[in-house]
Amino acid sequence: MFTIKPIGIVHIDVADNDIRNRGSAQGKVEIYEEYAEGLHSLEGFSHIILVTYLHHIKEPERRILKVKFRHLQSLGIPLETLPEVGVFCSDSPHRPNPIGVSIIHVLKIDGRIIYADNLDLFDGTPVIDIKPYTPFRRIESLNVPEWYAKIIALVKKEP
Amino acid sequence: MFTIKPIGIVHIDVADNDIRNRGSAQGKVEIYEEYAEGLHSLEGFSHIILVTYLHHIKEPERRILKVKFRHLQSLGIPLETLPEVGVFCSDSPHRPNPIGVSIIHVLKIDGRIIYADNLDLFDGTPVIDIKPYTPFRRIESLNVPEWYAKIIALVKKEP
Repeated sequence: MFTIKPIGIVHIDVADNDIRNRGSAQGKVEIYEEYAEGLHSLEGFSHIILVTYLHHIKEPERRILKVKFRHLQSLGIPLETLPEVGVFCSDSPHRPNPIGVSIIHVLKIDGRIIYADNLDLFDGTPVIDIKPYTPFRRIESLNVPEWYAKIIALVKKEP
Repeated sequence: MFTIKPIGIVHIDVADNDIRNRGSAQGKVEIYEEYAEGLHSLEGFSHIILVTYLHHIKEPERRILKVKFRHLQSLGIPLETLPEVGVFCSDSPHRPNPIGVSIIHVLKIDGRIIYADNLDLFDGTPVIDIKPYTPFRRIESLNVPEWYAKIIALVKKEP
């Protein structure tokens, strides 16, 4: 067992149950005073990797190992057509260690506040690390399994 | 404070102090029996994101907030020419929460063992999460600060 500590917190002015607006919300990442020096020279990276602790996840949800991409139901895709896959093929927050890895677009940095958009996180989510998104994180040639390619195709078909 | 638990372990047949060979080593990621079901359907992703706990990091190293890209000295780049930047601009293992986010190339998956190359991790590193590297993780249009672009240029100039 390892212990990790929050270095900051996500602020989003969208209610937890407002799924429609949460994904596209603008918000702020506040880095605590104690860690603010670590932000030095970060300005200029258009994207950063935000590592978070998904604090709403309860202990039983950490035992889930098979998932469906349930959020696609909101696009009109029936649950029964979605495959059940291992949790490590997904970004489901229900996973043994509820850690989020989000690539976020930085709008501006003002002191120890990072303004960002498309923050698909809950208000109050603890931030545990930040890393730069460099060209080396961009994999040019990649493959995905057939079941995943089918899901992408379904999503693209929706209006 | 949050607690996270290992779901697996990295096996690499390279000594900890063998810096030259560690970055390019082939190795294995073993997922523990208890979590093996979470790997279902992962086969076919050419790349995965491996989230690790950098277990060699000691408490004082978690207080470091400014870093230099010291490993570039091995390419003949003098330390004094490297800028000192905030730790969140870097992948330095010395950081408040020693969490690694590595994009790795999967060679094959055999049961609960993932064979991969370019595992720039120590033998015995605990694995805490796996996520798929999907096309959505590939940011086409991105910017980096001028100081970072200069470092990339220096690296590319080296033979």
